[in-house]
Amino acid sequence: MAPVRNSRVFFNSIPEGYPVLGETLVVDHAKTIDLETVSLEGGKILVKTVAISIDPFLRLHMSRSGRHHGTAYHLGEPIYNFQVVKVLRSGSELFRPGQHLYGVGDFVEYQVLSDLSKWTALPEREGIPWSVYLGAAGMPGKTAYFGWKVGADAKKGETIYVSTAAGAVGSMVVQLAKAAGLKVIASAGQEAKLEFLRELGADVVFNYKTTDLANVLEEHGPLDICWDHVGGDTLATVISNMKDFGRILVMGFTAAYNAPSASVTNLGLVLVKRLTLRGIAVGDHEAQCAEEFYAAVPAKLAKGELKYKETVVRSLDEVPQLFIDVQKGNNTGKAVVVLDD
Amino acid sequence: MAPVRNSRVFFNSIPEGYPVLGETLVVDHAKTIDLETVSLEGGKILVKTVAISIDPFLRLHMSRSGRHHGTAYHLGEPIYNFQVVKVLRSGSELFRPGQHLYGVGDFVEYQVLSDLSKWTALPEREGIPWSVYLGAAGMPGKTAYFGWKVGADAKKGETIYVSTAAGAVGSMVVQLAKAAGLKVIASAGQEAKLEFLRELGADVVFNYKTTDLANVLEEHGPLDICWDHVGGDTLATVISNMKDFGRILVMGFTAAYNAPSASVTNLGLVLVKRLTLRGIAVGDHEAQCAEEFYAAVPAKLAKGELKYKETVVRSLDEVPQLFIDVQKGNNTGKAVVVLDD
Repeated sequence: MAPVRNSRVFFNSIPEGYPVLGETLVVDHAKTIDLETVSLEGGKILVKTVAISIDPFLRLHMSRSGRHHGTAYHLGEPIYNFQVVKVLRSGSELFRPGQHLYGVGDFVEYQVLSDLSKWTALPEREGIPWSVYLGAAGMPGKTAYFGWKVGADAKKGETIYVSTAAGAVGSMVVQLAKAAGLKVIASAGQEAKLEFLRELGADVVFNYKTTDLANVLEEHGPLDICWDHVGGDTLATVISNMKDFGRILVMGFTAAYNAPSASVTNLGLVLVKRLTLRGIAVGDHEAQCAEEFYAAVPAKLAKGELKYKETVVRSLDEVPQLFIDVQKGNNTGKAVVVLDD
Repeated sequence: MAPVRNSRVFFNSIPEGYPVLGETLVVDHAKTIDLETVSLEGGKILVKTVAISIDPFLRLHMSRSGRHHGTAYHLGEPIYNFQVVKVLRSGSELFRPGQHLYGVGDFVEYQVLSDLSKWTALPEREGIPWSVYLGAAGMPGKTAYFGWKVGADAKKGETIYVSTAAGAVGSMVVQLAKAAGLKVIASAGQEAKLEFLRELGADVVFNYKTTDLANVLEEHGPLDICWDHVGGDTLATVISNMKDFGRILVMGFTAAYNAPSASVTNLGLVLVKRLTLRGIAVGDHEAQCAEEFYAAVPAKLAKGELKYKETVVRSLDEVPQLFIDVQKGNNTGKAVVVLDD
């Protein structure tokens, strides 16, 4: 069999603010790969990319000095993220052809993987697309599930505010909070997202672009818990509206991703109210929480007991635009590129 | 017996920045009290003030909107704080004459107390002045001991930075940290305080007024734990110099006590480094930790196994100046007014 095209998305320039179409990320179709003859010596495997996740935090890989769960993207090389791949050929005893694996790989169509310790075989899919293992049944779902478990300390009847609540993480948090008997205040920036939040049972739903957070929290707060993805002014307003002993889960800081700094001037209230602010990253709790997660979540998603939404594109060519959409909040639900079903 | 003078310190005006001598606090000598005939009906007790604590956080009682462990000072009424009193006469079965009690009372020479539930009898003093039950064996000592117990999660070999380390709280933290096998970086603003920190065994001692914190932490950090009393820029510099999973104990926020706001622009690092910032107030942990504290600390202070320093004045007339000195950090060790030995 002749070599086939092996497209990739590479990191072309460091953006100052939002990534720029045609500049920051470039799609390269020039490379090829021979799927039958490529060497797997030394225990390697050949995989086809099935689906890749596109997340807000990827912006942190695009700075000179930034670091987040590891290292920055390298100029001229493919960007990478969580993905599902299918094993085509195996030179290792660890995985066999046909298996679906989960791990961090490049934005390419085909890859030869050597460090297999970082990949795990996914369970048989429970009536949900493989792409969902990147969303509600994957990293964002785990972020919600693990963060809720280790940091929320939620008690029935408490009040929580979830920012960017219609996203892959937020929508799961809203559902976990409702299941735990909390009053849920949830915000998003588009009508379609607000409608989704109402479907999920959120008690107070508002558009943060047209409604002032401070007013909402004054009317429906104060808060016992905040699950925040935004930081900056949003975090400051939240801090002013927390109850004593409140917990703020710092799960994202998009206010600072595309701006030079985001200032918070009322941190003294952390002492006055004896608050806890905690940054939680999903990877730190994999060993502690993953088994419970896989036992519970995929089946509930398949049955519709937990709901999710996806924004799907079906070509690497569409990645640069979707990447920008995710930074600007223009997607609804988990953003994924699906290359194989 | 004729009535005796009963001087008091009252709150005269709300300061904008630092309290002002002759304006913010005023000493009134006009009132008298008849110690033999004053009524104790309804289970009251008459007490003589032995020693009153003067703490940095009292500034928070001086704003219109501020709150901290309770309510703001009222204009025209005596200010209050933690103190030791001696029972002169008792109309209650709870306490007997001669006992020394600990609680929150007014800055007055004599008081009739009615709500006795808020006062506790002190143990027999173990060779230390009663004033020490306001410092190393009192609220600041408890703040250090309780905060260390509930929030530090310290492991041998870790590195801690303690700001305002020569104070009543900080100096106890330095000693607890050394006892736990940590490398201790400690700062203060005067040579006498730096010398005290060296006596306590701090590994790195510097004057924050003449030495740049960022440089010190770059050379001797990064930090696993920060015990911070300052907030603002200090907190921002600390956040930039924390290790992953670091714990920041927000124990004071003097940067904001006398200034309109103190801005922190790098809170996004809370997520990147998975930090925990936690405000801890001593009163919340009394039930959990006080017994252990009284069993351990006073005896060690008497034996010199734990060290302390005091700044003592012996008249209510000297309170307004000492209050300002404490806000500006001009005292060394715990500030107290002692009216009876």
